[in-house]
Amino acid sequence: MHRSIRLLIAYDGSGYRGWQRQRQGEPTIQKELEIQLSDLCRQPVTLHGAGRTDAGVHALGMVAHFHTTTAIPLAAFSKGLNALLPKDIRILGAEEAPLDFHSRFSALGKTYRYDFFTGPVQLPANRLYQAHYPGSFVPEQLGPALAALVGTHDFSSFERSGSRDKMASEGRGAVRMLTRVSCIPVLDRADHWSIRFTGDGFLRQMVRILAGTLIEIGQGQRQAEEIPAMLAAQDRTAAGHTAPACGLFLEEIQYAPPIFCP
Amino acid sequence: MHRSIRLLIAYDGSGYRGWQRQRQGEPTIQKELEIQLSDLCRQPVTLHGAGRTDAGVHALGMVAHFHTTTAIPLAAFSKGLNALLPKDIRILGAEEAPLDFHSRFSALGKTYRYDFFTGPVQLPANRLYQAHYPGSFVPEQLGPALAALVGTHDFSSFERSGSRDKMASEGRGAVRMLTRVSCIPVLDRADHWSIRFTGDGFLRQMVRILAGTLIEIGQGQRQAEEIPAMLAAQDRTAAGHTAPACGLFLEEIQYAPPIFCP
Repeated sequence: MHRSIRLLIAYDGSGYRGWQRQRQGEPTIQKELEIQLSDLCRQPVTLHGAGRTDAGVHALGMVAHFHTTTAIPLAAFSKGLNALLPKDIRILGAEEAPLDFHSRFSALGKTYRYDFFTGPVQLPANRLYQAHYPGSFVPEQLGPALAALVGTHDFSSFERSGSRDKMASEGRGAVRMLTRVSCIPVLDRADHWSIRFTGDGFLRQMVRILAGTLIEIGQGQRQAEEIPAMLAAQDRTAAGHTAPACGLFLEEIQYAPPIFCP
Repeated sequence: MHRSIRLLIAYDGSGYRGWQRQRQGEPTIQKELEIQLSDLCRQPVTLHGAGRTDAGVHALGMVAHFHTTTAIPLAAFSKGLNALLPKDIRILGAEEAPLDFHSRFSALGKTYRYDFFTGPVQLPANRLYQAHYPGSFVPEQLGPALAALVGTHDFSSFERSGSRDKMASEGRGAVRMLTRVSCIPVLDRADHWSIRFTGDGFLRQMVRILAGTLIEIGQGQRQAEEIPAMLAAQDRTAAGHTAPACGLFLEEIQYAPPIFCP
């Protein structure tokens, strides 16, 4: 029996060198999962993620799939796998997938969230899950910037310099479409903010550079009206700084038909 | 110049062997603070906390004071100290205190909060800040238990066996007064719960044993009506299990007149 299994995964990236398996044997999410899955299936398992996340970046809804010929029941890949994994990686769901499903190539879009705190003193329990930008932050100043980012653009200025991933670019260079960018206060908590980005794909460090630039605008160090010129420049130095990894969460991968519906 | 300075402190207890300085040189909150304070003041500083917290227990509002003859400005003990401390310890406020103020002996009461999650899969970012009790939890079942705990009782059954702290008991044995015990859902999040305890003092592990017992009641493993018999037994084995340290937060110490008022 040939099966394709897809997993919905949450992880705390603090203790890992990112999603992607590394040659040097450093801890990564993919490696940790592949070790446990290969053990469960009693055969080598290669896990394909919907995307990569950098060291220290978190996920609430990563999707990954693998092919296997094992006959063990689906629950082994949710409850069973959770019993084996460290608590900073959790399987939120496991489903049988069509054999032609591919977590990355079937994805229509992704949503990332960037969390940050603008008060003077950050609570210790939040230090690994939000960036700290002490100082006044005026979300209304972002309006024209959010509007200018939505749509199809060449985002070269918002890509880590010298890091174009030829495979990931799939012939479209640095052109990506953002369908939604919003900045909202976190419910009921003063000085806590989330910026959400939904798009059909993201370049290396794109969300962190967008977040860094938008936070600079909200804190009055740049003007929202500069965004069109930043995009036109196609030059990393035209945009703002790269916000730290700890504030970034991969929230959701979109597919049609939808997957992991309760 | 002789000064007394009091500090309002938050910490993530995950990486420490509790508040209290230890002989063996293990990391503790008090030790970390005393090292930095002694450095700042250029004289040995002894910091007196309002209470002790066990290994892995967190604080959102610990109060501690120290005496010093240094003339450095108060801001050195908030902003300055935060720049020196690791990010899992934060100074939320620093005030000049009357010389007869004592963080422990002047305290009128304390509030602890116990956070836990009853859903099937705990998010990785929450694993160090809430206990995980998968299974149905019915807060209404706690009503008679909360009512029976409030008031003045001998809490021997809710004290770690063999651990009576003679100094802390101050001649009143295991008799303590709880003025408020409540269980509420955490705003807007399914299966997240907080139990708050306010009282004039707490025995060793008392909050964790109370929390463990109340969670057993909410999950149907014990009856709320058993609480009076548990109290009467004055025997640790009569009460429920000790809930894990990670769910416990020291929220507030009460004084008259109030301190650290914005």
